Amino acid sequence: MAEKEKLTIVVFSGELDRALAAFMLATTGASMGMDVSMFFTFWGLNIIKKNQGGIKSRGLMRKMLNFMNRGGTKRLKLSRFNMFGLGTWMMKKLMKDINHPSIEELITMARQMGVKVIACTTSCGIMGLDEDAFRSEVDSLAGAAYFLGEARESKVALFI
Amino acid sequence: MAEKEKLTIVVFSGELDRALAAFMLATTGASMGMDVSMFFTFWGLNIIKKNQGGIKSRGLMRKMLNFMNRGGTKRLKLSRFNMFGLGTWMMKKLMKDINHPSIEELITMARQMGVKVIACTTSCGIMGLDEDAFRSEVDSLAGAAYFLGEARESKVALFI
Amino acid sequence: MAEKEKLTIVVFSGELDRALAAFMLATTGASMGMDVSMFFTFWGLNIIKKNQGGIKSRGLMRKMLNFMNRGGTKRLKLSRFNMFGLGTWMMKKLMKDINHPSIEELITMARQMGVKVIACTTSCGIMGLDEDAFRSEVDSLAGAAYFLGEARESKVALFI
Repeated sequence: MAEKEKLTIVVFSGELDRALAAFMLATTGASMGMDVSMFFTFWGLNIIKKNQGGIKSRGLMRKMLNFMNRGGTKRLKLSRFNMFGLGTWMMKKLMKDINHPSIEELITMARQMGVKVIACTTSCGIMGLDEDAFRSEVDSLAGAAYFLGEARESKVALFI
Repeated sequence: MAEKEKLTIVVFSGELDRALAAFMLATTGASMGMDVSMFFTFWGLNIIKKNQGGIKSRGLMRKMLNFMNRGGTKRLKLSRFNMFGLGTWMMKKLMKDINHPSIEELITMARQMGVKVIACTTSCGIMGLDEDAFRSEVDSLAGAAYFLGEARESKVALFI
Repeated sequence: MAEKEKLTIVVFSGELDRALAAFMLATTGASMGMDVSMFFTFWGLNIIKKNQGGIKSRGLMRKMLNFMNRGGTKRLKLSRFNMFGLGTWMMKKLMKDINHPSIEELITMARQMGVKVIACTTSCGIMGLDEDAFRSEVDSLAGAAYFLGEARESKVALFI
């Protein structure tokens, strides 16, 4: 049997619009029979953090960072026209209006379609995050070498 | 005859600097004999909107969005040092000073060199845009599956 | 002997977080035996500018631009939570805390590992920069055609 073609996406950004683009590409790739991996790093980790519950981290600075940079799909904002939340709210309405899946639904869909969701070990180390901080859809933590290993076997590798 | 090598670029960002980078790469690729496709999505659609005339869209929210997020090459701003337009104006002057083509000229050149310019169907749906909103250089509307289909046959695929 | 697999990265952004991501990927790629090239353009040039000394450029506008957009690793800021420098300072502390190499150390490491560091000729022309503006780790200036030539022979090409 032929190997499936791979699509690998680094998700560096933590804004709603880029999160949507990443998951739309991931789910589309999976629907086309591609083997898709998403590798979340830096601000991108916010997209896959749990919406509920606090994040436990050690040290005052990490506690401060994880308070300000709380994350979770419900807290993602547009990179432009956020306008204190109004633009982000409007974008969500417009998507609903044409029955486009929300970021929450896209994450669930991606998981059901077999998309691998990986959090970057190094970023987690710097920010003081462990597996508890993330949603159940997250498969595992892995480093940049894992990403590059996947990327060099991929037909398409993108940095978002 | 050998197939031409492909270059595929997703243009997600709507700032002048990233638009310039995307079109410089696209025209350079075409001049090297590559078969180039550009796929505009989200804020990137602003780059290929018409400069003149209003955008017709249905519903109050889409009208508001298309008023604020008007687009067209003349309205693009730098992602840094815009300084209420001063930085953007300076950048244009500096480019002219060394006879570097403007974004307007790059779009025309790209078209003449056979670069394919495609607008993302899904983003158009969310924002309430139809083909009338775009410049004559835009070939067609297509979805993420079209982009991934091109990208996986490409030597180089970039997300800008 | 088999050719080494290539990794090519365009560094367009000039923020500390994206600079870190670019150099972490570059050094990881080199440690995996890949042949890595980094191509710095637009704001990305700030990452490889010298920290010390003024930048000589001709004309008032270029002098102004290079004064405001001074660059050098010590002046890089986070793309989010800069908070007048507090967030950037915190991020550096958090990295030091887990003994993660700083951007300064990553650039030195990259060079020692054979990563090629190239500045974009066109951006240098627009901004009025010559080789004197850059650190000793910079190999040469080259244009977009050079980048695409490398990218199309690469296993992985990313735009950061």
